[in-house]
Amino acid sequence: MKIAGKEYKTIWFDKDLNVVQIIDQTKLPHQFVVKSLKNVKDAINAIKIMEVRGAPLIGATAAYGIVLAIKENQDLEFIKKSAEELVKSRPTAINLQWAIHRMNNKISMIDPKNLFDVALNEAKLICEEDERFCETIGKNGLKLIEDIYNKKKNTVNILTHCNAGWLATINWGTATSPIYQAHKKGIPVHVWVDETRPRNQGANLTSYELNEEEIPNTIIADNTGGILMQRGQVDMCIVGTDRTLSNGDVCNKIGTYLKALAAHDNNVPFYVALPSSTIDWKLKNSKDIPIEERDPKELSHVDGMLGEIKFDGIQIYPKKSKALNLAFDVTPAKYVTALITEKGICEASEEGLKKLFK
Amino acid sequence: MKIAGKEYKTIWFDKDLNVVQIIDQTKLPHQFVVKSLKNVKDAINAIKIMEVRGAPLIGATAAYGIVLAIKENQDLEFIKKSAEELVKSRPTAINLQWAIHRMNNKISMIDPKNLFDVALNEAKLICEEDERFCETIGKNGLKLIEDIYNKKKNTVNILTHCNAGWLATINWGTATSPIYQAHKKGIPVHVWVDETRPRNQGANLTSYELNEEEIPNTIIADNTGGILMQRGQVDMCIVGTDRTLSNGDVCNKIGTYLKALAAHDNNVPFYVALPSSTIDWKLKNSKDIPIEERDPKELSHVDGMLGEIKFDGIQIYPKKSKALNLAFDVTPAKYVTALITEKGICEASEEGLKKLFK
Repeated sequence: MKIAGKEYKTIWFDKDLNVVQIIDQTKLPHQFVVKSLKNVKDAINAIKIMEVRGAPLIGATAAYGIVLAIKENQDLEFIKKSAEELVKSRPTAINLQWAIHRMNNKISMIDPKNLFDVALNEAKLICEEDERFCETIGKNGLKLIEDIYNKKKNTVNILTHCNAGWLATINWGTATSPIYQAHKKGIPVHVWVDETRPRNQGANLTSYELNEEEIPNTIIADNTGGILMQRGQVDMCIVGTDRTLSNGDVCNKIGTYLKALAAHDNNVPFYVALPSSTIDWKLKNSKDIPIEERDPKELSHVDGMLGEIKFDGIQIYPKKSKALNLAFDVTPAKYVTALITEKGICEASEEGLKKLFK
Repeated sequence: MKIAGKEYKTIWFDKDLNVVQIIDQTKLPHQFVVKSLKNVKDAINAIKIMEVRGAPLIGATAAYGIVLAIKENQDLEFIKKSAEELVKSRPTAINLQWAIHRMNNKISMIDPKNLFDVALNEAKLICEEDERFCETIGKNGLKLIEDIYNKKKNTVNILTHCNAGWLATINWGTATSPIYQAHKKGIPVHVWVDETRPRNQGANLTSYELNEEEIPNTIIADNTGGILMQRGQVDMCIVGTDRTLSNGDVCNKIGTYLKALAAHDNNVPFYVALPSSTIDWKLKNSKDIPIEERDPKELSHVDGMLGEIKFDGIQIYPKKSKALNLAFDVTPAKYVTALITEKGICEASEEGLKKLFK
């Protein structure tokens, strides 16, 4: 998708420099910086401090992390240890495990002299597949937007939480992909963008990327979705997910659950868009999903601009106050209208998922 | 209650200076500034820009606004026009109308030479009454906290939204008053303080005032209450209100509705604390409550500290983005466990309220 009119993806391998390149998302929206990851430590750090974020993108970054590890040292112990550290770099999104598992499978039993090329090829395949899946999610979800438009004959208002946009994937995004497809088709859409405290990924990333694609959007405080739904100003919700269980329970950015409750209370359809790499087929109980707890400074301090000057670490809370920063919550399947996947749309249930994925 | 160990109220008349004094709440928590309101324009402005806020406190400020108007000009037309402007200064809280109505009743048919003294006396009475009512709300609500403590024999975790603390009233607060009473009685309490975007009254005012009274509290993003309730980490919610209808529908700071939904979904009791001055006996349909829409800059810009230096107006959103800033929402009565008033605790319904208030 576009930034300042130029097409980008969120991650790519630069052959000439022999490095992985990313858009440093901690700098957005105030600065646009492309950053090089030269070794596996850079990749781990980029995931940890959220220079890259979003379940599909951190999966892809972990895959490239393996490539960078191999570039440094082809010793199997080193690669194995790197893989373990990559998996541990963030706990909640299942895509990290998924990508590392896939990379491990691919590179085991490979002649050392081919290791780098095989790994690089697989990481690229993971990215290409994610991009294709996201595009297909968009085409599948488009029908839902079209249906509303055909009834309403007026702008379709879509609420989203956090950033499940192209910046969270390789391209297209998950939750935003149907929106981009609708926009391309000329269906008038308007997006209510939840600010998404504490890191403001809604404001800083979703609104930013929608602006760059010229899709009308309005940022709202996370508190606002409820009254908008009560007033009939939301036609549908679409969010992404960091891990969806086979029973349809959806783990996603903290606050998603509250919006799902409001949608349920007001008969607003609540959709979750995801590639199959985000499905956790093993865990049976959503209480067992590790919920990441991050630095409370993400709540108490903000970055921003004063005129043309950027300030980092502005303290907004009382000095004596402490804060708790949980990054995700779980929306029970019963509050999810349907899942939008690359294989089609299904009920958020074991039965629904099994019909699409054998 | 105390700030830096010294007892304060939120508003008072200074006889020597012949002015009304307030704590400028736009400066908290980073600076503590007492400000003088010299004329009715100052009072209107203080309400508009939220130097004073909270339904009971803006009622009291409006009452003092009439006193300041009389101080300036005893012409009845001027006083009438001042009263109208005071009522219009913020639309949602009913206490403004209530206080002005009470002042008008008191000063009509009064000998001009007594007008100022009568008005000043009535404004003081309004404040004294609010303080007494809030203290009684605390004693009534204390029983609810005590009941939980007696069962649990461990710290009672209370979630609150926005600031319905003593800073929103004259003293004690509404939602916080039972908490202060419990703390005084030695019941261990811990408060989950919703940050309350966009103006962060939870972080900036509630956490601040609880800190000053040494009550353990933790600030959370507004998104966080849901998962805490799912995990059993919230024993009860108590919030304030800007206007409660006679049918029990509760208008309060935006986001209250979402917490009430989560409380309902997790069988957590959800209480609303209010003095009777916040009850709107006339309006029948909560859709008719005027919901204030404020400047989107309250979302896109923040104030804060960098070391010891205060910065105002730090822009946190993308430059091109627009935002919508609705200040209140309505929680339907069915999601409210009970109302805590100065007359006792009642069901959030016409029947419940009528039993307490004839």
